[in-house]
Amino acid sequence: MKVVITGGMGFIGLRLARRILDLGRLKGPDGAPVDVDEVLLFDVGHPEILPYGLGNDARVRAVTGDISDAGTVSGLIDRDDISVFHLASVVSGGGEKDFDMAIRVNLTGGLNVFEAVRAREGAPRVVFASSIAVFGGSGMPDSVGDQTKRTPQTTYGATKAICELLVNDYTRKGYFDGRSARLPTVIIRPGKPNLAASSFVSAVFREPLNGIDYTLPVKPDAVMPLLGYRAIVDGIIRLHEVDGDELGDDRAVSLPAHTVTVQDMIDALHRVAHDRKLGTISIEPDPFIEEIVATWPLDTYFDRALELGLPIEDSLDEIVRYYIEDYVDGLGA
Amino acid sequence: MKVVITGGMGFIGLRLARRILDLGRLKGPDGAPVDVDEVLLFDVGHPEILPYGLGNDARVRAVTGDISDAGTVSGLIDRDDISVFHLASVVSGGGEKDFDMAIRVNLTGGLNVFEAVRAREGAPRVVFASSIAVFGGSGMPDSVGDQTKRTPQTTYGATKAICELLVNDYTRKGYFDGRSARLPTVIIRPGKPNLAASSFVSAVFREPLNGIDYTLPVKPDAVMPLLGYRAIVDGIIRLHEVDGDELGDDRAVSLPAHTVTVQDMIDALHRVAHDRKLGTISIEPDPFIEEIVATWPLDTYFDRALELGLPIEDSLDEIVRYYIEDYVDGLGA
Repeated sequence: MKVVITGGMGFIGLRLARRILDLGRLKGPDGAPVDVDEVLLFDVGHPEILPYGLGNDARVRAVTGDISDAGTVSGLIDRDDISVFHLASVVSGGGEKDFDMAIRVNLTGGLNVFEAVRAREGAPRVVFASSIAVFGGSGMPDSVGDQTKRTPQTTYGATKAICELLVNDYTRKGYFDGRSARLPTVIIRPGKPNLAASSFVSAVFREPLNGIDYTLPVKPDAVMPLLGYRAIVDGIIRLHEVDGDELGDDRAVSLPAHTVTVQDMIDALHRVAHDRKLGTISIEPDPFIEEIVATWPLDTYFDRALELGLPIEDSLDEIVRYYIEDYVDGLGA
Repeated sequence: MKVVITGGMGFIGLRLARRILDLGRLKGPDGAPVDVDEVLLFDVGHPEILPYGLGNDARVRAVTGDISDAGTVSGLIDRDDISVFHLASVVSGGGEKDFDMAIRVNLTGGLNVFEAVRAREGAPRVVFASSIAVFGGSGMPDSVGDQTKRTPQTTYGATKAICELLVNDYTRKGYFDGRSARLPTVIIRPGKPNLAASSFVSAVFREPLNGIDYTLPVKPDAVMPLLGYRAIVDGIIRLHEVDGDELGDDRAVSLPAHTVTVQDMIDALHRVAHDRKLGTISIEPDPFIEEIVATWPLDTYFDRALELGLPIEDSLDEIVRYYIEDYVDGLGA
């Protein structure tokens, strides 16, 4: 079978591709495991070198293009024995700065992906990467999860909520077999800070570990639900593999998460990396970032995800250790 | 000011136009009441004669066209002193039979309306007619309302839920001042049965009152929330007039409703019209209709609507009396 990953050359997309190739097979549309013979990474841009050995794998194909162009997208989804992981998205801060781009990429792009899969035979599986940014606002309960009303307070969150609804309806109609993985904030992203309002959540670990001083844009008592990238990737794959019957008519599953403060994050870093030379962390609140963070949920519940076998790390410390292993001491894989 | 009513030549659109013209003024974008000098009715088709004296009112203009054409829609919304009532929609049964049309009319059409209003200055008011069809499915609580998660089980309901999210986000961005009126099933529609799965809810009153025998497609113990057309129209106008601050960040308000059985409806008809010659009612369940009705909520709560001053009739009997007054003994107005 073929696997298409939109946003496939982003951080999670690349790690997901590596993991799928290592597994070698996924469940096909009829539920039986099938060998993966092609992984197509689609994204708006191409890194200089595909990391994690993806550049040397004959099964990998990397294509750049505009997801808001329907013809481009249907050209990628060109087989019936296919699964699509739809990760392409503008990020939250970027979506607040450019509403039209958020609608074009997240809504039109999503519709293009869903229509292209619908055009195939046999109702292929689709996993859509949603976000807990679907929650927010004045009526939000302290703990959010699979029964909570979606009240997004960013255009990013609104378009994620809309695509969750579309995934459910295309699935109900039998056009594909969809699942939405509602992701908490992913840590620890390597590389450079990006436009996501949540960028600091990774930077507060990464920059000090790189020996770089870092200025946090939020206060130490800010609370947020986080999950490490290994559990995110394994959770997305697990959600692909689960039988549709187990999911019922609401296909959006909140992934597990650790609810921690920014101070907890700083403490975990110092506990795990106490023997390393770290950049210093200072604090200088940025109202633009703080305003977005204030709309995030304080806590999450995720009993359905655990029942379905989606993983979570033992602790924040384990996430820091994985990151050091993968990106500080390791070679990026 | 100008008032645009999409779906303006449908049952509710025409009654809404009549009521607005009788009132003569609405709150403008800055909250101060302004005289209405034009009511533009936009719809896919034009009735032979505009009823309720609308055809003789110099303030009324009727335009037909395709709401999924952006240029057509922006041509209607051509002033800054404007309010838009967006009622145009495929109906639930029609949306189940033609998914693409439901997406084109309800989603693309909605986006066209929202973008056209966004292009005006001063954040005009928009009232979007949503539906309790945004609720449904296996996880739905017995009573649904403003805090309930949207889990639609029809494409009609899914597109209504999506537009509620868009109305909230355009409002949050300051692009317009939006409100979504989440309508229960409207009774009693005059005229002929239509493709709405809920068509029988009006027909069970209307056909016997017209002396026509009627076959119900559902069982007498089927339960559903209903509201009469006068309260629907007054509720839509009241929601337009409410200050945005009173609505907060979730602009979707569930209208009040009477929760009744089909037997209650038959009983009310016979109580109110006992001195009239009525067609007989027989029952012949239709699985296609029953399946859709089974996805509807059993009960609703609507305390926020009542606090905001949205009306509800005293009883089902009052709705039957209004209908007889307006459409059986009256001249349709």
